[in-house]
Amino acid sequence: MASPGSPKAPRAIQEFSLIAELHRRHGQLAPSIIRGIGDDTAIVRPPSGSWSLVTTDLLTEGVHFDCRRTSFVEIGYRAAVANLSDIAAMGGTPRYLLIALAVPGRGTGSQIHQLYRGLMAACRPYGVRLIGGDTSTSKGGWFLSIALIGTVAPERALLRKGARVDDLLYVTGTLGDSSLGLRLLNEGASRDHRPHKARARSRTHERFLIRRHVHPTARVREGQWLSGGRLATAAIDLSDGLSGDLRHLCEESRVGVEVDLAAIPLSRVCRAYAQSQRLDPVEVALAGGEDYELLFTVAPRNQARLEREAKRRGFRITKIGTIRPARLGMRARFPGRAFRALTVTSYEHFR
Amino acid sequence: MASPGSPKAPRAIQEFSLIAELHRRHGQLAPSIIRGIGDDTAIVRPPSGSWSLVTTDLLTEGVHFDCRRTSFVEIGYRAAVANLSDIAAMGGTPRYLLIALAVPGRGTGSQIHQLYRGLMAACRPYGVRLIGGDTSTSKGGWFLSIALIGTVAPERALLRKGARVDDLLYVTGTLGDSSLGLRLLNEGASRDHRPHKARARSRTHERFLIRRHVHPTARVREGQWLSGGRLATAAIDLSDGLSGDLRHLCEESRVGVEVDLAAIPLSRVCRAYAQSQRLDPVEVALAGGEDYELLFTVAPRNQARLEREAKRRGFRITKIGTIRPARLGMRARFPGRAFRALTVTSYEHFR
Repeated sequence: MASPGSPKAPRAIQEFSLIAELHRRHGQLAPSIIRGIGDDTAIVRPPSGSWSLVTTDLLTEGVHFDCRRTSFVEIGYRAAVANLSDIAAMGGTPRYLLIALAVPGRGTGSQIHQLYRGLMAACRPYGVRLIGGDTSTSKGGWFLSIALIGTVAPERALLRKGARVDDLLYVTGTLGDSSLGLRLLNEGASRDHRPHKARARSRTHERFLIRRHVHPTARVREGQWLSGGRLATAAIDLSDGLSGDLRHLCEESRVGVEVDLAAIPLSRVCRAYAQSQRLDPVEVALAGGEDYELLFTVAPRNQARLEREAKRRGFRITKIGTIRPARLGMRARFPGRAFRALTVTSYEHFR
Repeated sequence: MASPGSPKAPRAIQEFSLIAELHRRHGQLAPSIIRGIGDDTAIVRPPSGSWSLVTTDLLTEGVHFDCRRTSFVEIGYRAAVANLSDIAAMGGTPRYLLIALAVPGRGTGSQIHQLYRGLMAACRPYGVRLIGGDTSTSKGGWFLSIALIGTVAPERALLRKGARVDDLLYVTGTLGDSSLGLRLLNEGASRDHRPHKARARSRTHERFLIRRHVHPTARVREGQWLSGGRLATAAIDLSDGLSGDLRHLCEESRVGVEVDLAAIPLSRVCRAYAQSQRLDPVEVALAGGEDYELLFTVAPRNQARLEREAKRRGFRITKIGTIRPARLGMRARFPGRAFRALTVTSYEHFR
């Protein structure tokens, strides 16, 4: 929606021409795209009989990212992964991207370029096409809103609500790395006075954790496998943190859960860095957000097939618990210890 | 995408609970909605064989609206109409809405309520359902991004690029009212020292024009009729202003145009108010934005059927020109005068 009253500085016009150019460049057509950028709306032809998946995410400067600590490539990359991960959690195929971007007066063409580079770099492996968007100047900071459209075969979508009592609880990858990476970014350069060798190892660790934060991976292939093979009964992506996202899954499925805390998959680096900071890595995994791993449940009769296929495909999955009746609530324990109530320590994300 | 590092004030949490509540309230299900709000993505079932239409619009405080001059109901209403109008211009049926909203610290629950009220009021006549969204605090001002998804029968979408030489150029409704309404809002209360009777009439006029700006109508029914009856060869909605949107249509269709300036439909109030302000109402219509009328072209052989059906359905349409070869460019004239080049005086809206 354009306002006839909006003043446009020459600088802003240059930027908008740049975005129009970026949209043309990235807005390649595909057989399923009848009209991409350049008409009143985009037109796409959904695969016959498929269901459409639609998700949107909003990032605002100073809340979701800090331009001084994160590059615009990384901001774009993470924004795309957050949306790709939502499609992954449904077992779907991401297909079409729309970008709404508000640029502050201090925004430069180079920053816009980098943002699109990050967005498209995350989307490229999945063949996601840019089909539309809108652009504005901003009197506040940077605002980026993305809508992503995907498809899934009918009845194959992985919902949060499908978990049943006695189902096994699994997670992909390792948890907590991203959260420690963010912590490192927020703390700035480390002030480390240990001997050179220890410091060098620590730097490698830090780079790994920061990379896991700024360059996360959406588990699209894993989601498609779980959906296509009818392996998972429910799934959610870990964006808020294990404890919070597990609560979403339990609430929607109306079940309880028992989590084996010792089984939560942690990277070697996560353990080492948490120890050096006197943090409990399990607590980090329970609270930490933006892992973008998949949390899913599997009926016991499918466990053997699941683990066999995961191994064959090279997908890392770990069993971390069992679904229980709702009246038992969410509980967790270390081996040999008593169960305790699992409290939600994640970032609370209202939708 | 939630960031674990974002601090949340109790006020913000209250607001987000409110939005979650609004989403639950407005997110009613429909047979075509497999999952609405409450999972990783929404799932919808496109009508068999249909094409999907997707559009997004971004509104930022201080650029697209001024909270001091426009109510939040009106901001929401206009935001929805801008998107509905894009679907209307394709001849489609609007179906699903996603709302991404960033709320500044000073934002109140009442303002959020009003915004949603406006959004849903504009969508309700068309049965559009809210299926998703995302919410954030904002360190800048208000920021609203909407994505609207619609459907259209295959091969029936009205594109910008279908106009052919000798096609007749038509427009719905009247033009320029919205632009004068915005002018009135920007000027604030009128300082009018004329006699009471003239002043009262002037107030009525002002209310009409302001209402046309803050409460526009998306021409969804008209678009569906033009598409379903295979009447229009091309169409675009007038969001930027007649001269600018006409250029978009001509460029995409690779044609020129001759516009009959005397035929441009103007409301009685637009003429009277423009005269009182020493403005040329035709210039106002050519430059003015946000009319949300449809500009479309029709093959000469369909003219009689078009006008007969429009009359029967009570749709106001007016022939304002003829499509010409591209080499003649965009030209306009008053009756009996020579053609002059039609320059674009609209707001330039880069996408």
